[in-house]
Amino acid sequence: MAAKQRDISISEFFAKNRHLLGFDNPRKALLTAIKEAVDNSMDACEEAHILPEITVSIKQLTEKKFTITIKDNGPGIVSEQIPNIFAKLLYGSKFHSLKMSRGQQGIGISAAGMYGLLTTGEPVQIISRTDKRKKASHCHVQIDTSKNKPLVVLDEDCDFDLPTGTQVTITLEGKYQKGKQSVDEYLVQTAMANPHATIIYNLPDGSVYEYKQQSKKMPFVPVEIKPHPYGVELGLLYKMAKESTSKRLSAFLHHDFSRVSSNMAGGICKKAKLSKNARPASLSLKEAEVLHTAINETKIMAPPVNCIGPIGENELEQGLKRTVEAEFYAASTRKPSVYRGNPFLIEAAIAYGFKTAQNKSNGDGDDEDKQVQMELKRFANRVPLLYQQGACAIHKAVGEINWRNYSLSQSRGTLPMGPMVLMVHIASVWVPFTSESKEAIAHYPEIIKEIKLAVQECGRKLGIYLRKQKRIRQEMAKRGYIETYLPYIGEALQEILLLKDKQVETVVSRLKEVLEKTRQL
Amino acid sequence: MAAKQRDISISEFFAKNRHLLGFDNPRKALLTAIKEAVDNSMDACEEAHILPEITVSIKQLTEKKFTITIKDNGPGIVSEQIPNIFAKLLYGSKFHSLKMSRGQQGIGISAAGMYGLLTTGEPVQIISRTDKRKKASHCHVQIDTSKNKPLVVLDEDCDFDLPTGTQVTITLEGKYQKGKQSVDEYLVQTAMANPHATIIYNLPDGSVYEYKQQSKKMPFVPVEIKPHPYGVELGLLYKMAKESTSKRLSAFLHHDFSRVSSNMAGGICKKAKLSKNARPASLSLKEAEVLHTAINETKIMAPPVNCIGPIGENELEQGLKRTVEAEFYAASTRKPSVYRGNPFLIEAAIAYGFKTAQNKSNGDGDDEDKQVQMELKRFANRVPLLYQQGACAIHKAVGEINWRNYSLSQSRGTLPMGPMVLMVHIASVWVPFTSESKEAIAHYPEIIKEIKLAVQECGRKLGIYLRKQKRIRQEMAKRGYIETYLPYIGEALQEILLLKDKQVETVVSRLKEVLEKTRQL
Repeated sequence: MAAKQRDISISEFFAKNRHLLGFDNPRKALLTAIKEAVDNSMDACEEAHILPEITVSIKQLTEKKFTITIKDNGPGIVSEQIPNIFAKLLYGSKFHSLKMSRGQQGIGISAAGMYGLLTTGEPVQIISRTDKRKKASHCHVQIDTSKNKPLVVLDEDCDFDLPTGTQVTITLEGKYQKGKQSVDEYLVQTAMANPHATIIYNLPDGSVYEYKQQSKKMPFVPVEIKPHPYGVELGLLYKMAKESTSKRLSAFLHHDFSRVSSNMAGGICKKAKLSKNARPASLSLKEAEVLHTAINETKIMAPPVNCIGPIGENELEQGLKRTVEAEFYAASTRKPSVYRGNPFLIEAAIAYGFKTAQNKSNGDGDDEDKQVQMELKRFANRVPLLYQQGACAIHKAVGEINWRNYSLSQSRGTLPMGPMVLMVHIASVWVPFTSESKEAIAHYPEIIKEIKLAVQECGRKLGIYLRKQKRIRQEMAKRGYIETYLPYIGEALQEILLLKDKQVETVVSRLKEVLEKTRQL
Repeated sequence: MAAKQRDISISEFFAKNRHLLGFDNPRKALLTAIKEAVDNSMDACEEAHILPEITVSIKQLTEKKFTITIKDNGPGIVSEQIPNIFAKLLYGSKFHSLKMSRGQQGIGISAAGMYGLLTTGEPVQIISRTDKRKKASHCHVQIDTSKNKPLVVLDEDCDFDLPTGTQVTITLEGKYQKGKQSVDEYLVQTAMANPHATIIYNLPDGSVYEYKQQSKKMPFVPVEIKPHPYGVELGLLYKMAKESTSKRLSAFLHHDFSRVSSNMAGGICKKAKLSKNARPASLSLKEAEVLHTAINETKIMAPPVNCIGPIGENELEQGLKRTVEAEFYAASTRKPSVYRGNPFLIEAAIAYGFKTAQNKSNGDGDDEDKQVQMELKRFANRVPLLYQQGACAIHKAVGEINWRNYSLSQSRGTLPMGPMVLMVHIASVWVPFTSESKEAIAHYPEIIKEIKLAVQECGRKLGIYLRKQKRIRQEMAKRGYIETYLPYIGEALQEILLLKDKQVETVVSRLKEVLEKTRQL
C-alpha cells in the first residue's frame, strides 16, 4: 500500500471532481464558463475604475459543441501573466487580500478552460491589450493537468478594436437552453445588480440583447483590509505571530489587524500579562492562548465599512421594480458585521403582489395548494447565484423565519407562500461558498443571523402592509353587510314602531353613521 | 495588478475555505474529524483483509476543546509515510486508482489535523505499528499551510498494545451534542452499513457503547479497474493517448480501458478509419475526435461488477430491521451502471409503518399536516451522509418520484409523507460528491436515473402492500355494514312477505353468503 501513496495535482483533482467547480453537465458548464469570464471582466474594470462594457457571445458549432467569447473594456492583462491566469488553478491576485470582489480563489477561468480542453481538446484563446499605443497579445494556452502548469500553444501580436481590454474564447461541450438557471437569466440578474455596467449579449440564434448602463456612477471602490481580531482563531494567531515581520508584540497587533490602535495593542498585551516588547515570532503556544483570550475580552470596533459596498436600499428597490411589477416594495440594508474576522453585510428587498397573480395576494393562505411559493433571488458580491438554493444559508435563514408573523402562510422551515420575490445580497471581503463553484453560501451562524434580521425588517414592513390590506378588505366586507341589511332593518323598524317614510330615512342614515364610527380604518 | 498575482497553496486555500471540507462549525468539525479517521481505518483494514475493530474516544478538555482518538487493528503505516499522510493535503493512494473505497481524495485526515492546528495549535499525534516483531512509531506532525508540507515535531519508538494498527489523536475546537447529525448517529449508521466491523465508542461522559461485529465475512474485496470507454470525453481520450505507454493504437484501447478486447480494439480502429498500428502519442485532435465517435458507436459491455460490492438486499433489510421496527420491509439492489466511465451501483431499502405511529399508516394522506415526512438515510460506499440532504442527488431523485402511484401523499418535488424510513446506498469506484466534505452526491443524470429505478422498485412493492391494506380496511368496513344492516333487512322482509322466523334466518344467511361472494378480497 505504501508504494502507491503519491501526490495529487490540484488540476487532476478538479478535473476528476469538476462538478465541484460547476461543470456537472453541459448546460450548467456553459453557464459556469460564461459566469467566470464575466466575473473576471467586471472585477478588472472596477479595479481600474472603468465603467464595464461587456460583450458575451455564444456560437453553436455542432449539436453539443459551443464557442463562447467574453470581451471587456478593462485594463487588459500583461502578456507574461496570461498563461498563468488562464491555465493554472489556484493562481490569482485576490486570494491573499481581504477585498470585496467577485472572483476570489484563482480557480474559475482556468477551470473553464480546463473543462473546454477536456471535452473538446481546444485551447483557450485570449486577446488582451494593456496600452493603446501598443498592439494586443494573442495567446492560445492549455493547462497541463498532471503538473497544474500552463502550456502556451500560440503567442503573437494582433490588432484589437478597443484601446485596452481583454477577450477570452473557450470552445466547450455545452447545451444552450432558455428558462430557469439559463445564461439568459444569469445575465438579466447580473444587469439587475450592476446598474453601472453595459452588457451586450449575442445569442446562438443570432439575436442580440443589450442591457444599457443605467448609472454613470462607479458603485464603490473596493478597499483592501487587514483581518479583524475577532474570529482569528488561536492556531491562526499563533501562525501569524510566527510569520510576522513586526519585532514587537504591540506592533504586530497594531499592524497586522484592523481596528487595533497602538494604545489598544498595549492594553491587550497588559491584559495578557505579556511584554509589549516581546518578539512575536518567539511566542509560545501557551502565550498565544493567553493573548487570544485577551483579544476576545477586549472591546474592539467592528471592521471598517468602506471595504464593502452595499447595492443600497433605493437601488435594490429600483432593481426589483425594473423586473417585477408589484403592489408593494420594501428594502433593507444592514450594517456590516463579522464572521471569522471577515466583514460582511446583508441586504434584502421584497416585491409583493404581482399584477398577474393579484387575486392570490390576500395572504390568508387558505388554499395553500393553489398558491405559489415565494421566489428567492440570491446574490453574492453582486453576482447572481442560480444553483443549489437548498444548500444556501440564505435559503435556510429565510425558511427559518416565521412568516406567519407577517400574515403569510408557510410550511415549517420552507419558503413562505405568496406572489412575491425576495432578493438577498451578501457583500463581503470573503464570501464563504459551500463549494468552489460558488453557488451557495455556507451556514455560518453570524451570516444566517444577519440575513434573518435584514429579511425580517422587510417582512415587518410587508406584514404592516398586508394587515392593513386585510383590514381594508374586512372593512369593505362589513360596509357591504351594513349597506345590504340596513334597508331591511329600516323596514322592520317601520313595521314595529309604525314610523313614517321620512322618519325611517333619518333613522337609517343615523344608524349607518353610528355603525361606521364604531369601526376604525 | 499584475504584481499581486501569485500562487495559492492548496492548504492555504482549504484553510480559508475549510467549510468545504466539513469544518463549518465546532459541532460539525468534531463529527468530520472522527468520520475521516474512521473512514481511513475501515479502508485500511479491508484492504489488508482484516475484520475491522475500531475504537473511537472523545475527551472534553475545556468547554470548547476536545481530544479525539481513533484506534484500529489495520496493517499500520510505514513510518516514512506518516508525515505526508497526516499533514499534507492531496496526498494518498486512492486518487489515481478506480477502486471502491471510503476515502478517495487524499485530503480528509490531513484537513482534520489542519483544523485542529488552526483552532488549538496542537499537532496531530500518531502511533502506528506495521510488524508485531517491531516497536511502533510515535509521531507528532503538523502541516505548514503556506507550503502544504508536513513538519515533524516528534518522532520516536513506543509500545503499542496491538500487533499491528494505527492510532491517531487530534486536539480541536469542537462541540459535543447528541441528536441529529451527531457523532452518535454517525456511528450507529456506520455500524448498520458495516456488519463486519466492531466499533467501540467511548463518549465524553465516560460511558461506552459497543457495536459488536455481526458477521465474520469480509463484505467484499475491492478490485481496481481501468476506466470504461463510455464517458471518457474527447479531451481526456486525447490526453490518455498522448501519455500512453502503448506503441500501437489497438494496444492502447485494449490495455488502458476496461471491457475492450483486442478484437474490439481492432474493430474500433477500423470504424474510425485509423491504422491499428498508429502511434497513440502522435494522434491529432481531429483523429482523436473520430476515434471518440467510433468508441461511442461501438457496443461495449458494461464495466465489470466485481469492482463494486453492494451491501445486498438481505443485509439491507436486516440492517433496517435492527434499527426500525416496522410493518413492512422491502429492498432492491440494481445492476451496476456507468457515469463518466465510472461504474456505480444503487441499492434501496424501505421500512414502512413504525409501531409508534401505526395509526397514521393508512397511506390515504387526508390529514397531511399531521403526517410526518419520510426519513431518508443516505450512504456512499457504506459511509452514512448526515449533512446537505437538500443538495444530494438521492434527495432530488426521491423527491422526483411520483409517490402518489404508491398510495402515499406527497407535495410536488419533496419527500413523501408517511411513517417510513428509506435507505439509499451508492457504491462506486469514484463517488462524485458535491464538495470535498463528501456530504452529498452530485446530480449526474445517470445516477439520478438509477436511484429512481431502485427506489421505485421498493415503492412498487410498498404500493402493492398499501393497496392491499386499504382493500382489507374497506372490506372490513363493508363487512361491518352488512352485519349491521342484515337483521333489519330480515325484519323488513318478514313484514313484507310475512315470513316465519325460521325462514327469515335462512334468507338472511343466504343473503349474507351471496353478498360475501360478490366481493373479492
